[in-house]
Amino acid sequence: MNLHPFFYAKNIAIVGVSTTPSKVGHVIFKNFQDNKFHGNVYPVNPRETYILETPCYKNILKIKAKLDLVIIAIPAPFVLTTLKQCAKKNVHHVVLVTAGFSEVGNTTLENQVKNYANKHNIKIIGPNCLGVYNGYTKLDSLFLPRYKLQRPDTGPISFITQSGAVGSALMDVAAAEGIGFAKFISYGNAMNVDEADILEYLGKDKDTKIICMYLETAKHGRKFLEIAKKIKKPIIALKGGRTMAGNKAALSHTASLAGSALIYKGVFRQANIIQADDPQDVFAYAQILQKCPKPKGKNVAIITDGGGYGILCTDEIEEYGLHTAELSQETEKLLKTQLPSLASIHNPIDLVGDATTKRYQDAMEACMSDKNVDIILIALLLQVPRLTDDIVGVITTYSKKKKPIVCVATGAEYTKVLSRRLHENGVAIYQYPRLAVKSIKKLVEFYD
Amino acid sequence: MNLHPFFYAKNIAIVGVSTTPSKVGHVIFKNFQDNKFHGNVYPVNPRETYILETPCYKNILKIKAKLDLVIIAIPAPFVLTTLKQCAKKNVHHVVLVTAGFSEVGNTTLENQVKNYANKHNIKIIGPNCLGVYNGYTKLDSLFLPRYKLQRPDTGPISFITQSGAVGSALMDVAAAEGIGFAKFISYGNAMNVDEADILEYLGKDKDTKIICMYLETAKHGRKFLEIAKKIKKPIIALKGGRTMAGNKAALSHTASLAGSALIYKGVFRQANIIQADDPQDVFAYAQILQKCPKPKGKNVAIITDGGGYGILCTDEIEEYGLHTAELSQETEKLLKTQLPSLASIHNPIDLVGDATTKRYQDAMEACMSDKNVDIILIALLLQVPRLTDDIVGVITTYSKKKKPIVCVATGAEYTKVLSRRLHENGVAIYQYPRLAVKSIKKLVEFYD
Repeated sequence: MNLHPFFYAKNIAIVGVSTTPSKVGHVIFKNFQDNKFHGNVYPVNPRETYILETPCYKNILKIKAKLDLVIIAIPAPFVLTTLKQCAKKNVHHVVLVTAGFSEVGNTTLENQVKNYANKHNIKIIGPNCLGVYNGYTKLDSLFLPRYKLQRPDTGPISFITQSGAVGSALMDVAAAEGIGFAKFISYGNAMNVDEADILEYLGKDKDTKIICMYLETAKHGRKFLEIAKKIKKPIIALKGGRTMAGNKAALSHTASLAGSALIYKGVFRQANIIQADDPQDVFAYAQILQKCPKPKGKNVAIITDGGGYGILCTDEIEEYGLHTAELSQETEKLLKTQLPSLASIHNPIDLVGDATTKRYQDAMEACMSDKNVDIILIALLLQVPRLTDDIVGVITTYSKKKKPIVCVATGAEYTKVLSRRLHENGVAIYQYPRLAVKSIKKLVEFYD
Repeated sequence: MNLHPFFYAKNIAIVGVSTTPSKVGHVIFKNFQDNKFHGNVYPVNPRETYILETPCYKNILKIKAKLDLVIIAIPAPFVLTTLKQCAKKNVHHVVLVTAGFSEVGNTTLENQVKNYANKHNIKIIGPNCLGVYNGYTKLDSLFLPRYKLQRPDTGPISFITQSGAVGSALMDVAAAEGIGFAKFISYGNAMNVDEADILEYLGKDKDTKIICMYLETAKHGRKFLEIAKKIKKPIIALKGGRTMAGNKAALSHTASLAGSALIYKGVFRQANIIQADDPQDVFAYAQILQKCPKPKGKNVAIITDGGGYGILCTDEIEEYGLHTAELSQETEKLLKTQLPSLASIHNPIDLVGDATTKRYQDAMEACMSDKNVDIILIALLLQVPRLTDDIVGVITTYSKKKKPIVCVATGAEYTKVLSRRLHENGVAIYQYPRLAVKSIKKLVEFYD
């Protein structure tokens, strides 16, 4: 299925651009303007001649240019009329943000629109959705104002979401946390473009390295499984309706019968999809898969300057079924010559409270050379007095080597500034031990 | 045990104040200066006459004033000499930050110091610790520079920690997240003041409403249990060494044999101590216990403007053994008259994407009156266009009523600003559904 114009259209009409700033069509049009979108955008509203100082069109047939994409934001009863104009103007790609179709029981109208679209070979994303976003072209149909919903920088993650709310909240988080997005698709009721079609497209998309999704159900389970199995990029899926009660709640949402949790666990396993259970997990898992190389095994060495943190990390490693590496005799012998007597040279390696960057460097070097170590977990307490900020450069250097390095750093401003720098340098970093270790577990499972 | 002078001393000597800014004694003294501590602080160093423009003393016997507290930051071999001077000067409270005692096998020296202290009735916090902090008096022996470790505002939480690293990292987080601290104690090897003594003191301390702790082991298990059982304030304990591997790692840390995870689970249950497993959980649990009233039961009503978030919350509620409330017929009937037809009037109540503050108010009012609802969980997607920031005032008002209200809000700047305001208004608020629901679970268990 050719979904390309949804993300790369040059000429776009927006149908239903009101002069009222809080109205959906207005917000979408204003976002295009504020975004400095490189193509042409034509507002359509039969009752206006100018909107935001731009000429407004009575309907899309009045627009002379060939249209690559039409975004429809008018009430459900009027959608079919606009769709007929699309057919007439040879438009084959429509984003239909309008709600009020099958998700509220209006199945007849949805089927009418769908049948017409199928007959005229019009691909529709929606209805009942936020639509599409391309971080590179700045094509953006999301009707949420930018001061409330920030847009993230460009980057390797694309996000497919059945729920506009979940997707947009996480997109907002991505913007705050420096998680780069390529494409974002909120597909709503999946009238004739479903999550599997979008997944297939992103599987081949060169800007997309990691695919994140929120879904309650796959519209066509078998098709979804077959497509997902073929994609070698990491796919992380947050599943809504994992429980009986959640499943029941999903029934009344986006008109979908959410499949049973057990079936999905099986499908995800077959397709090597990484399941996330909480929104917090999604980018945690994406980050480690984006930044870390394949680990040889699941033996983790911990390096820390805070003994208690070493213990908490050890607990998590055992609880998540990973192993704390048993350091080789050579490593321990070497560390004994390098580290002060107060330090612990066994795993977890404790560099103690007067740790310096040099001690971290020695410990990382030793673990990198130790065959018993597959993964290095650094529990970095940046509050200690003698640790200097060149630690950022040293960890960055070792993170480019052959073993996965994962950091934990808990703290306020100073810690956050250095953590952000590590993140931007491509180091996988987490605020708390549990999320770090859960993410390591997913990294190991993905390559297992 | 009278621990009062550790927190309210007026005349304090710091032994071992070097002129080198990164040295422990210097950092402590400088913190007292920068803090604008209201009492008198006397730096002691036999080789200096002035430090940071303050007269320096050869030893504590040279100080004329009566001393309430002595903070010792000199190498372990010289500690006993200073302690003898303390006895001579009738000092009964010492914070001993120095490391290099039993935690590195130097048990003989530790016992010497301990026996001397006991004989002369000197109470020692430490050795191998950060010492004490009182948010109200600004007494602060923490040798971590303030630009690396922020100090939180004053507030109802006191924190006891066996590990300086874990405690200080969380104190730093508290400062960033607006979590108010009364007292903080890092007690290290617990020479003759242990976690149970401190717990007992905080149990009676009027500024402390909630006690948080990190511990690997209780020095005297039975004593700890008996004291904890008598305290009616919520106690939240992060336990290091919950697993076999973690336990083993704890052996070499603060000289303690960490008790088995199972024993601790039992002790915690008997004393109604709330167990946290990850540092992230500690203030999450503290917050809900600080802000929410006792719930009547475990039936949770969800109110949201994002259907997907309603489903994710429902999943978590079921997974954590709580119940999604079945709304009464009256409630559903009332909501049907108030909410638009697109909304869902069953639990989870979905106010949909064009939700307003008024809709939230109607839904909260209905749930507050519904006997089937014990707890209200608001999954607040603040990104939607029509929701205005008066939502903060409305939720705040309802949070003062008789049922616990807990919020989830995921997002970037705009969401964070409003979330912070809700937090400061006393509303329990979380960034992600899982942490919110885990916290509700602990609230229910605490009062069960």
